[in-house]
Amino acid sequence: MLSNLVKNGLCRIVGEANCSFSREELLCYSYDATNTLHQPDAVVFPSGPEEVSLILKMANSEGFPVIPRGAGTGFSGGSLPVEGGVVISFERMRKILEIDTENLVAVVEPGVVTWDLQQKAEKLGLFYPPDPSSLKFSTIGGNIAECAGGPRAVKYGVTRDYVLGLEAVLPTGEIINTGVRTAKGVVGYDLTRLLVCSEGTLGIVTKAVLKLLPLPEATVTMLSLFSDMRDAARATSAIIKSRIIPSTLEIMDSVSIKCVEGFAKTGLPDAGALLLIEVDGHRAAVDAEAEAVRKVCLESGAKEFRRAADKDEVKDLWKARRAVSAALYKARPGKINEDIVVPRSRIPELVEGLRGISERYGVLIASFGHAGDGNIHVNIMHDKETQAEAALSAAEDVFRLALSLGGTISGEHGVGLSKARYLDMELKPEAIAAMRKIKEAFDPRGILNPGKIFPTPPGRKAAGSAVVL
Amino acid sequence: MLSNLVKNGLCRIVGEANCSFSREELLCYSYDATNTLHQPDAVVFPSGPEEVSLILKMANSEGFPVIPRGAGTGFSGGSLPVEGGVVISFERMRKILEIDTENLVAVVEPGVVTWDLQQKAEKLGLFYPPDPSSLKFSTIGGNIAECAGGPRAVKYGVTRDYVLGLEAVLPTGEIINTGVRTAKGVVGYDLTRLLVCSEGTLGIVTKAVLKLLPLPEATVTMLSLFSDMRDAARATSAIIKSRIIPSTLEIMDSVSIKCVEGFAKTGLPDAGALLLIEVDGHRAAVDAEAEAVRKVCLESGAKEFRRAADKDEVKDLWKARRAVSAALYKARPGKINEDIVVPRSRIPELVEGLRGISERYGVLIASFGHAGDGNIHVNIMHDKETQAEAALSAAEDVFRLALSLGGTISGEHGVGLSKARYLDMELKPEAIAAMRKIKEAFDPRGILNPGKIFPTPPGRKAAGSAVVL
Repeated sequence: MLSNLVKNGLCRIVGEANCSFSREELLCYSYDATNTLHQPDAVVFPSGPEEVSLILKMANSEGFPVIPRGAGTGFSGGSLPVEGGVVISFERMRKILEIDTENLVAVVEPGVVTWDLQQKAEKLGLFYPPDPSSLKFSTIGGNIAECAGGPRAVKYGVTRDYVLGLEAVLPTGEIINTGVRTAKGVVGYDLTRLLVCSEGTLGIVTKAVLKLLPLPEATVTMLSLFSDMRDAARATSAIIKSRIIPSTLEIMDSVSIKCVEGFAKTGLPDAGALLLIEVDGHRAAVDAEAEAVRKVCLESGAKEFRRAADKDEVKDLWKARRAVSAALYKARPGKINEDIVVPRSRIPELVEGLRGISERYGVLIASFGHAGDGNIHVNIMHDKETQAEAALSAAEDVFRLALSLGGTISGEHGVGLSKARYLDMELKPEAIAAMRKIKEAFDPRGILNPGKIFPTPPGRKAAGSAVVL
Repeated sequence: MLSNLVKNGLCRIVGEANCSFSREELLCYSYDATNTLHQPDAVVFPSGPEEVSLILKMANSEGFPVIPRGAGTGFSGGSLPVEGGVVISFERMRKILEIDTENLVAVVEPGVVTWDLQQKAEKLGLFYPPDPSSLKFSTIGGNIAECAGGPRAVKYGVTRDYVLGLEAVLPTGEIINTGVRTAKGVVGYDLTRLLVCSEGTLGIVTKAVLKLLPLPEATVTMLSLFSDMRDAARATSAIIKSRIIPSTLEIMDSVSIKCVEGFAKTGLPDAGALLLIEVDGHRAAVDAEAEAVRKVCLESGAKEFRRAADKDEVKDLWKARRAVSAALYKARPGKINEDIVVPRSRIPELVEGLRGISERYGVLIASFGHAGDGNIHVNIMHDKETQAEAALSAAEDVFRLALSLGGTISGEHGVGLSKARYLDMELKPEAIAAMRKIKEAFDPRGILNPGKIFPTPPGRKAAGSAVVL
């Protein structure tokens, strides 16, 4: 609970119209995509870094948590106020400040929706590649905090690769500028990339300088059906081995395909696996590459191969992939969705291992995702009433499997709240200790987004109300 | 000076054959490309992270500086033992441990020479893009410490963009693993990119996991002559605006061209500026792009345009660019070589400003470098006997100019020793304070590569012997 002193202070800083303490409004800032609810004590809508700075300074002197929040689309609880406190929301900071067509740079406020930036860039013949599936809702600030990825990461990399510089407010209230507006810049430690992916625990981004690319001239979309995940995985490796880096190389297993068919009737024939492949770039190059992809798929045992001839067919081919998340959620609202990564050559072993886990715990597992970069979304489709515990054990086994194959437990969702307890499966105590040192140096009172990434120290209790929806 | 206790300890850790205290040998580890000499008290050649860890632990208990060193090709003094101490050299750690052709990953020890990795990768149809001009000598460890760039950065980025994960020893001796072997990975803070570009002050890299790309199928090399730097700069912007990102887009001004002609007789006609341009990728695409580049150059006022027809002609076109550094050095051995960056659209203003500085201080300025990413090597060609002070003032004005144009004072050489005193021209005190906090958290006794990046605190004196060569 916030004191009246704090409440009045917040109102003074952002203006009375830009803070709220009403239960109804707070509810809107209490959830994300993890199906849990943690209510904050206040939500504020600052208009710039100075206001953010004043809020953080007051948080340090009065001792309340501050939680930056984008659109709340995260899958790991990064924006949840687990100890209550003040949510900072960026509805008033969503301007695209500049698109520099000469130097291929965009300057944006954190509340800009990723899709809006992409559309605006596209109109100028430019391209902002990061494409998390939430891109029509999620914001650049949230994308930066979690280092969002997406299908295009296989060719174009992730959010980290497009952040050139930042304006950020440190937990103790200092406003800093990091990085540059240019491709190169090596003056001092790389605070830019330290802030990217720090899940809002080391600073609050108030402005971002982003790198843009020229919009690729042409794209070819293809769909290939296989009778078996192993064939699809083999085709994935073979495509890359033939020196083609597709701009999208997505995979779906038979459980995902069946589920989508039940949900959206996309007209896909029954298949053991599918690959959705796009190549982009110069027109002449993509035609040659598409032909090479076709050959590789057929040689790897594809039962069927389609190439979209026009925009409608492109939409058609994407239909199943686009519907899969919703379809799986509809089938099992309590499903656990993980985003492990393995080196792509080891996807066949992953598939084998997942089959074993599914049998061992008697839970259905649906896998789909970004085969090209090995980032597979493993969905444990358990019955919430009877299989909750088995599902959690299965998830732990999935993490163990990914790590044993040289992978990681999270490719793009982040650690946040939901994976904090698994952090030490992947990182050695010495690495975690080094991270904690940075956190303590930047945020000695622990007021910025507490309870995230690191397991909560024993004796400290979450103060917010947690309700599993 | 090291005590006998320390000397014996070092010998025990790395073996007597792998440490040296002899003046002659120490001399070899006393310099880099900055023309100054700082002698260490010992040099050791560890064979792995455990030995590095033991050395660092002893450094903390006994209180002596430790300085990691690659090939000593740096331009900012990053590897110089300014306070004496123990240089760690990686001659015994130069194995390419693995090139994974399925997942496009290389695992290397820090002493691997960049060129060796590139050659080995190329034989497998793979590509490690970072290409600092020192690449035939400099090592991956040094490249990572300074975040080395090079001509290809305009299209392919810098060293940072190719480091997926690290094994490193923290200043207090803990051995950690950071990052992943995959394109995605968001578990915990990004210690990988924090260590990249930290100039050997936050940890010693003992192994690196690097990203590789498929080797581009074709490359076209072109040279275009202009009567004026402004025309060349305009062509640079126009090429990128036409949605072509060349793999190399180098510029040389008339002073550089004249100097090269006097030195190497490359047969270049007198010109105000030249652009050396390469496009690479799919064969069909590069031909079309090369034709577009030709058009843009001619439209921007090129006096001459050549396209290499074969490998010999490629070498020919590169001759001047390759010789420029040596030619300028020959002409003025004491020249100051800076590597400022400006947004590329502002190169014409930079050129104008440099002309003013040259006139103001009566020093000749030769500029060349990476026009495509705005990273220009500004060489102040002063007479060492009579113009040393004027040259330093001119250099400061060059930094001021770059910053006023939205640039940075270093694109790829680093801060090290030589730019530490200018750090606060670019960074606000709050950002420097945040960097210092990280340094202090990681290295409380300040034993790892002291005197670098941050201006030395008053009262602390450099203990090593500094001699200007």
